Amino acid sequence: MRMVDLIEKKRDGHQLTTTEINFIIEGYTKGTIPDYQISAWLMAIYFQGMTEQERADLTMAMVASGDQIDLSAIEGIKVDKHSTGGVGDTTTLVLGPLVAAVGVPVAKMSGRGLGHTGGTIDKLEAAEGFHVEITNEQFIELVNKNKIAVIGQSGNLTPADKKLYALRDVTGTVNSIPLIASSIMSKKIAAGADAIVLDVKTGAGAFMKTLEDSRDLARAMVNIGNHVGRKTMAVISDMSQPLGFAIGNALEVKEAIDTLKGEGPEDLTELCLVLGSHMVYAANQAFSLEEARQKLIEVIENGEALEKFRVFIEAQGGDGSIVDDPTKLPQSAYQIELVAKEEGYVSEIIADHVGTAAMWLGAGRATKESEIDLAVGLMLNKKIGDKVQVGESLVTVYSNTEEVEQVKEELYKSILLSKEKVDPPVLIHEEIMK
Amino acid sequence: MRMVDLIEKKRDGHQLTTTEINFIIEGYTKGTIPDYQISAWLMAIYFQGMTEQERADLTMAMVASGDQIDLSAIEGIKVDKHSTGGVGDTTTLVLGPLVAAVGVPVAKMSGRGLGHTGGTIDKLEAAEGFHVEITNEQFIELVNKNKIAVIGQSGNLTPADKKLYALRDVTGTVNSIPLIASSIMSKKIAAGADAIVLDVKTGAGAFMKTLEDSRDLARAMVNIGNHVGRKTMAVISDMSQPLGFAIGNALEVKEAIDTLKGEGPEDLTELCLVLGSHMVYAANQAFSLEEARQKLIEVIENGEALEKFRVFIEAQGGDGSIVDDPTKLPQSAYQIELVAKEEGYVSEIIADHVGTAAMWLGAGRATKESEIDLAVGLMLNKKIGDKVQVGESLVTVYSNTEEVEQVKEELYKSILLSKEKVDPPVLIHEEIMK
Repeated sequence: MRMVDLIEKKRDGHQLTTTEINFIIEGYTKGTIPDYQISAWLMAIYFQGMTEQERADLTMAMVASGDQIDLSAIEGIKVDKHSTGGVGDTTTLVLGPLVAAVGVPVAKMSGRGLGHTGGTIDKLEAAEGFHVEITNEQFIELVNKNKIAVIGQSGNLTPADKKLYALRDVTGTVNSIPLIASSIMSKKIAAGADAIVLDVKTGAGAFMKTLEDSRDLARAMVNIGNHVGRKTMAVISDMSQPLGFAIGNALEVKEAIDTLKGEGPEDLTELCLVLGSHMVYAANQAFSLEEARQKLIEVIENGEALEKFRVFIEAQGGDGSIVDDPTKLPQSAYQIELVAKEEGYVSEIIADHVGTAAMWLGAGRATKESEIDLAVGLMLNKKIGDKVQVGESLVTVYSNTEEVEQVKEELYKSILLSKEKVDPPVLIHEEIMK
Repeated sequence: MRMVDLIEKKRDGHQLTTTEINFIIEGYTKGTIPDYQISAWLMAIYFQGMTEQERADLTMAMVASGDQIDLSAIEGIKVDKHSTGGVGDTTTLVLGPLVAAVGVPVAKMSGRGLGHTGGTIDKLEAAEGFHVEITNEQFIELVNKNKIAVIGQSGNLTPADKKLYALRDVTGTVNSIPLIASSIMSKKIAAGADAIVLDVKTGAGAFMKTLEDSRDLARAMVNIGNHVGRKTMAVISDMSQPLGFAIGNALEVKEAIDTLKGEGPEDLTELCLVLGSHMVYAANQAFSLEEARQKLIEVIENGEALEKFRVFIEAQGGDGSIVDDPTKLPQSAYQIELVAKEEGYVSEIIADHVGTAAMWLGAGRATKESEIDLAVGLMLNKKIGDKVQVGESLVTVYSNTEEVEQVKEELYKSILLSKEKVDPPVLIHEEIMK
């Protein structure tokens, strides 16, 4: 088999076979097929797309390129959740304890990563003493005992995906639905999930700006998952403004606690109930989405969800009393209000820019070496559709410096007011269950 | 400027500026832009094409990437001819002396190359003593004196094109009209031509199999040439069967001599008159194509064309008496007839396969190291449309071995007969003069 023939086959719009896709991914991982042939092939895919079979084959070839996590020692159906990323997205912190409280095993492998705020592990470290340096045996024991544990990323998962992603980044081939979908799904499958619930964000603050693109990506991932025997469903949720109120690490932990108590922001609570229902249903812990939702509301109301969060944090060495007293979380030195200079209705909150402002405060990493300040961040006091009077606070800035002029300037530019009444955006655009 | 942005610009169908194309070609030549970005860009061009301006810019950027031959010391308008390649194409050998005899300066840089038969230099070496190892000064002096000389390829012409071509070859991006056209034109322009006459072959034995593709390529090259100030025209000529009768080095020299005497094959003679008329007209040696053709016929009839061939060969150390006695050319040991096994009309002569048979005899190079046998080759005794009786010779095989079973087998498979009468193919499909 010659790579150039396979490039031409794809270029001319024909379907590559499973054997051919395996040849390409194995060869690229081993280094026998050079970057310059792969990048031409990726560009041909950009233009010609991939069939459902090809997408599934590419996904599984990337899974096979490295280690695969074996979660078979954990009882029950392991459901993983994946979000395509947004600003102020506290869902992971809420969903873990929430679905664990109704019996869904949550075996989470997580990272730190770059971005506006830290990764899940950074956020959980706001509980003093919490750590993810546990052995695989401890991890599995904890999930079997408490239904929830988090471990740091280890092993050589999907090296082909890592190599392909780095190449796509510099060759104009990032923005291809089959390539994005295969990349995400390969990582989830290699991490051992039996079922996968996808939260595909849509809108100005999301990677996919239009509902149409978001739907294409969601359908592509759901098709791949089900094609390769992983029960997969997707929720398309709104990211035309940040989710919830908090953007920052300790602030998001506090918001998660509020939400687990039933006192969280409406949009965050609703999205967690929708995603959580799919997770509970996929794990066979309910006969219907409606029953699943009912069970989730119950564990919020009877305190079991919050209690699960405490148990989870304490099992990994953290201070569980933050659940009762969130003032034990890292606190910033200053709280500065960003007051409205005119009256009106909030018409837009540009999530990307708000996230950048949080990063400038120190909430996120610009480079791998950056240190995160867990205490700092932003609390939105108004969201799209809210009426604002002159002098009312739009945002509270949690900072460890008084010099926040640049941050405030960015925020003023990011929060737009309208004289006309504005409707709040729809939260859940679609649910795709194959 | 970042290469990834330029890849995306082309991918999205936008026109790259002159500055951007220069950035790409300079960067690639210097090695600051890696293969993997260029191959993605080439594949984007494959799908999105290039505008006329972009094609001209790419051509001139490749010209600027290396040395450029300065022919300004040669008097008159230097006209170069380029053929997109076929089988048994003796036109170059005929055209040089023919147009030189009417005063067009022919300053030919030529090579040896791979293929079914040798390059122009190999063929001319069939005249004992002929050599192209002359200095640039001698070359220019000879052209000014005799109007014709040939020199071996030297200098670092269009290194960007060489690098791009090698990459296209392994990334499925050879078959793109803008890339093919820019590649050919850059080489001709770097070689110093003021005007360029293109012979674009079409049909089964040509690189472009359909008239439509051939027309696209011809138009693309004519547009580039005229866009950058080189008078350029193209003839689309038939290659549904080999041109003339001879396929082999000494055999083609003999055929060229016959043609210069006015006794050559009809198709070869006509194509040389058509291409030659364009060359004479482009060199301002005639007021019309009709007058140019008349001048060419005159120099054939009065013997000046043949005499020019003798002078040209002798000026570069060759034995000019081959012109009077072609038996002085290298002769093969055996002449074996391929006789018809059935009667009918020749309906097809698959040029590629006939060329391959000639290469097996030793007429061409399979690799750079192969030695060429100048004496061997094929003479077609029948062409498409000819009536054939059982036992008549279809081809005479000139060989230095009696073991030609494989060659004969290939030839029987390549020459198809039909019971029905067949019309000979049209020779000149189109002439494109901007």
